[in-house]
Amino acid sequence: MSKEHLKKTDRTNLVRNPSRADYDRDVVNGIIDATSLCHVSYIIDGRPYVTPTLQWREGDTIYWHGSSASRFLRQIVNKEVCISITHFDGIVLARSAFHHSINYRSVMLFGDAHKIEDGDKNQLLEDFVEALIPGRWETLRPMTDQEAKATTVFSMPIDEGSAKVRTGYPVDDDEDYSLPIWAGVLPISQTLHAPKADPKNLAGLEVPKHVRDYSLG
Amino acid sequence: MSKEHLKKTDRTNLVRNPSRADYDRDVVNGIIDATSLCHVSYIIDGRPYVTPTLQWREGDTIYWHGSSASRFLRQIVNKEVCISITHFDGIVLARSAFHHSINYRSVMLFGDAHKIEDGDKNQLLEDFVEALIPGRWETLRPMTDQEAKATTVFSMPIDEGSAKVRTGYPVDDDEDYSLPIWAGVLPISQTLHAPKADPKNLAGLEVPKHVRDYSLG
Repeated sequence: MSKEHLKKTDRTNLVRNPSRADYDRDVVNGIIDATSLCHVSYIIDGRPYVTPTLQWREGDTIYWHGSSASRFLRQIVNKEVCISITHFDGIVLARSAFHHSINYRSVMLFGDAHKIEDGDKNQLLEDFVEALIPGRWETLRPMTDQEAKATTVFSMPIDEGSAKVRTGYPVDDDEDYSLPIWAGVLPISQTLHAPKADPKNLAGLEVPKHVRDYSLG
Repeated sequence: MSKEHLKKTDRTNLVRNPSRADYDRDVVNGIIDATSLCHVSYIIDGRPYVTPTLQWREGDTIYWHGSSASRFLRQIVNKEVCISITHFDGIVLARSAFHHSINYRSVMLFGDAHKIEDGDKNQLLEDFVEALIPGRWETLRPMTDQEAKATTVFSMPIDEGSAKVRTGYPVDDDEDYSLPIWAGVLPISQTLHAPKADPKNLAGLEVPKHVRDYSLG
């Protein structure tokens, strides 16, 4: 059974003003589940790296994947990582430069990157495709053992970290509200466009329901 | 005068398949300039961190900012960082799970985080607002010295790093093109919505031209 809150630790306190951090697991999960993109940071030979990759969540665990041929992925097994997931929701236009901001939802997670063993990997790769686009797996040419081997899956417990969310209008200095300066928000969202069929599709193939029904977030 | 290409180094080779990396400065700059959001990773006390923040570029230098009150920002002065900027442009639906992918444009940059001294900061903060939304600075209540002091600006030369871009349709195994499986792309883009005026704006203020004219990317 899940704990309802993530742990506050020295690490989470270092990077977040604790008064603005949200440790509620439902808030954190909602931000994770609203996109596939994440940024994973790690240390190799004492130097920092950050790479974008695709993630998905099952319960209190986050998963991400990469190529087994990747030299750097081999070096992060059982090492500490920090994962960030961020949605850019708008530009906040205040009456002073200082109070300009953006609206966003972000999660930062800390933990060790565990490599999934081969026996457990096939089901997770199915879960990954289903997380990316529900309903697709059963329509596909089955995965081969070679393909499963070529993919590395990492997991990390969602245990230590926090969310931070900004919404709404600017917060200006009291005296600035009397100035004749237009303030407000430029909302931004990710938009899905009509599916583009591969020109190499067999003639007569219709867009399947799982593609027609797909929605972001 | 700018060099036309970024440096290939052990670091850039470690994280990118060199055959897929693009070191062309125009490609890198185009990806940086198409958003304000970046992820900066760094090491504190031997542990990895990654935080989302806003960046802007001037020539061959990338800048980002944070609160001077932030404990962690003080710890990255003159330290190595890695910066990632990523655009998620679509989901690539292949005929096999293995060849599923996303379309994206991403840049990874390496270097040391230099803290901008107070004397040089005011002009850069103006540049930052103008990069976020051109034409806005001159409409604002002037910045105070206290506000400039409360903001830390970092710079890093854009010198070591690379871009990686995926566009277009899936690339499937030759024999899979004969399967009756719908393949294609679900395009995704960031969309700007109509400006939302702060309800606390003075009566009669019109949406200014720099807000009406704003476009993403």
